[in-house]
Amino acid sequence: MKNDLLLRALSGEPTERPPVWMMRQAGRYLPEYRVLREKYGFFERCRIPELACEITLQPVDIIGVDAAILFSDILVVPQAMGMEVQLIESKGPILPDPIKTQKDLQRITIPDIHDKLQYVFDAVALIKKELNDRVPLIGFAGAPWTLLCYMVQGKGSKTFDEARAFCYTQPELAHQILYMITETTIAYLKGQIKAGADVVQIFDSWGGLLGPEDFENISLQYIRRIVKAINGEVPVIIFAKGAWYSLKEMAATGAAGLGIDWCIQPALAREFAGDNITLQGNFDPAKLLSPIPVIKKEVTQMLHAFGNKRYIANLGHGILPNIPVDHAKAFVDTVREWEYSSINAN
Amino acid sequence: MKNDLLLRALSGEPTERPPVWMMRQAGRYLPEYRVLREKYGFFERCRIPELACEITLQPVDIIGVDAAILFSDILVVPQAMGMEVQLIESKGPILPDPIKTQKDLQRITIPDIHDKLQYVFDAVALIKKELNDRVPLIGFAGAPWTLLCYMVQGKGSKTFDEARAFCYTQPELAHQILYMITETTIAYLKGQIKAGADVVQIFDSWGGLLGPEDFENISLQYIRRIVKAINGEVPVIIFAKGAWYSLKEMAATGAAGLGIDWCIQPALAREFAGDNITLQGNFDPAKLLSPIPVIKKEVTQMLHAFGNKRYIANLGHGILPNIPVDHAKAFVDTVREWEYSSINAN
Repeated sequence: MKNDLLLRALSGEPTERPPVWMMRQAGRYLPEYRVLREKYGFFERCRIPELACEITLQPVDIIGVDAAILFSDILVVPQAMGMEVQLIESKGPILPDPIKTQKDLQRITIPDIHDKLQYVFDAVALIKKELNDRVPLIGFAGAPWTLLCYMVQGKGSKTFDEARAFCYTQPELAHQILYMITETTIAYLKGQIKAGADVVQIFDSWGGLLGPEDFENISLQYIRRIVKAINGEVPVIIFAKGAWYSLKEMAATGAAGLGIDWCIQPALAREFAGDNITLQGNFDPAKLLSPIPVIKKEVTQMLHAFGNKRYIANLGHGILPNIPVDHAKAFVDTVREWEYSSINAN
Repeated sequence: MKNDLLLRALSGEPTERPPVWMMRQAGRYLPEYRVLREKYGFFERCRIPELACEITLQPVDIIGVDAAILFSDILVVPQAMGMEVQLIESKGPILPDPIKTQKDLQRITIPDIHDKLQYVFDAVALIKKELNDRVPLIGFAGAPWTLLCYMVQGKGSKTFDEARAFCYTQPELAHQILYMITETTIAYLKGQIKAGADVVQIFDSWGGLLGPEDFENISLQYIRRIVKAINGEVPVIIFAKGAWYSLKEMAATGAAGLGIDWCIQPALAREFAGDNITLQGNFDPAKLLSPIPVIKKEVTQMLHAFGNKRYIANLGHGILPNIPVDHAKAFVDTVREWEYSSINAN
C-alpha cells in the first residue's frame, strides 16, 4: 500500500499526520458525480461495477483523500432481504411496504449474499484493481438498528418514533428482524473483505435516538456480533452518530476505530473511549460552507484538539451536497499539510 | 397554591414525591383536544383565550398532572416579529419567506409585545383564574437559536443544515437576529409572568444540533440573557434537547431547572449538572406505547435512577399523538403513587 496512513492509524502505529477522508466523499458536491447522476439511476450507479468504481475513485483523484470508500447505500441490505427500496436522492429513501407485524416477516429472508449482492463484490474487486494500492478501500454496511428504522418506518424521520415504538411494543419480532439483518450483514461484510476491502465501517446513523440501555439492547449487541464475526480480518470502524454515552462500550467491542459527530469535545470522547482505540471525526459538515480561511483555522483547531495519537480526520457526518469543491479540498489539504510536530511547536 | 410540588421541587425544598407533567400534555393524544382541533385552526386555538384555556386545563382535569402548561406554540414569536407562519399540524410548520440575507432583516422587528401577543397574556390570565391555584401554570418560549432555525430554514428539518450554515457563514447577521429574538422573548416571557405564569420554560429543541462551542456562542449566551432578565421573578427551566455537553454551563445560568432527554443516564446528568439545580425528564416518549405494566415498571426504574432530590418527572420530549390516554395516565399515576421513602425500602 503506497499510502497506508489509515491502516497505521487504525492499528495504533505512529503516523506523520492523521489520515483524512470524508463521509459521503463520493457524492453530489462533485460535478463529476452529478454528470453520472444525470445519466443513471441510483441503483444503476450501485449495480454497474464500472460506475460504482468510477464514483468511488473520484474523490481520491480530485480531492486527494487518504482512503476510498465504496460507493453504495446501506439500504441494499434490506433490498437483498426482500424489501422494495426506492431511492430518489432529493427525497430520501422510501420503503413502500414497511414491516409492521409478525406476518410481514414472511416477506424477508436471510439471502444468499452472492445471489443478491455479487454486484457489490464485483465493484469492490474492480475498485481494488483500479486503485492499484494507492490508498486503502473502506467497505461498509448499516448497523442492524439503523436498517430496522427504515424497514419499519418505511422512510426517513427526525426521530424514528415508529421504529422505536416497534422495538418497545414488539420486542420479540424486533429481535428476530435484528438477528436476520445481523446475519445478512456479517455475510455481506465478509464478502466485501474477501473481494478486497481493507477496512469496514458500520454506520449506525440513528444509534443516538436510543437511550443508553436501549442502545445496548437494540443496537450495540448486534454490532458487537458483527465485529466479533469479522474477527480482526480487517479493522472495523463503528460510527454510531449521537451515541456518545456508549463510547466506552463500543471501544470494548474489538473495533479498531470509533467515529464521532461534532457534538462532543474531542478530549471528552477520548476520555470516554479510552486510549486503545482510534477516533475518527468530527468536523461539523455545515462549517464547510464557511470561507476557506475560516475552514483552515477551524480544521487546525480540531487537529490540535484530537492530539497526535490514533486519530483519523473526517467530518462528523456526511458532506453536504452544496459544499463547493475547493472548500472540501481546503478541509483535506489542511490535514495533509499538518504535521504532528506542530502540536509541540504551537 | 393547593399543589405546589413543582414550585417546591424547583426551589430545592423537600417533596413527598416528584411532581409530574408531560411536554405537549395539551395535545393530540387527548380526544377532547381533537374535538376542538376539528372545529378551529391552530392559531384560532392559540388566539381565542377561552380555547387556549380549555385546552391548557384538559390534562389537569383528565390526566391529573401537577402543572398546567400554556397551550401555544414557540412560533408565535417569529410571527409577532413579522414573519408569516403556517402551522398545519400533520405537516409541521412552514415559514414561506425565510430569512436568507441582510436585506430580509427589514421584514422583521422587535415588536410591541402587547400589540402583537396580548392574546397570550389574556389566555394566561384566564387560565390562572380557572385553575384557581389548583396547580402552577408554566409559561414558555422557544430559545433564540431554535426560533432562528425555523426563521432561516423555513420548515422543520432533521439537522437544520441551512440554519447552521447561516450562522457560520453570516455570523453578524445571525447575531443580529438572535439579539432581536432575545429582546422579544424577554418581553414576551415577562408579559406571561405579569399575567400570572408561575414558572417559565425555554425550549431549545434544536440546541443539540450544535457542537459545544457553537452552542455557547449561538444558543446559550442568549438563553443566559433571558434567564438573567427574568432575574428570579419566577423559576426558569431550560430544556435544550440533546445539549448534554452543556449541562454544567446551563446549570450556572441561574436557571432553577434543566430538562433532559432520554439519551443520557440520570446519574451522569446529575454529575454534569451538579447538585444545585432541579432535573426534569426523561422518559422516552415512544415507550408510552408499551403495555401498561411495562410502563409502570420502567417509570419506576426512572424514579429510582433520579433519586430523591430536586427532580421533576416528565418525558424526554413531547408526548406522541398516538399514545392511548390510559397509557399517559399510567405514566402520571406511577409517579403520583411513588413515595421517596420507597427508595430506601427497595
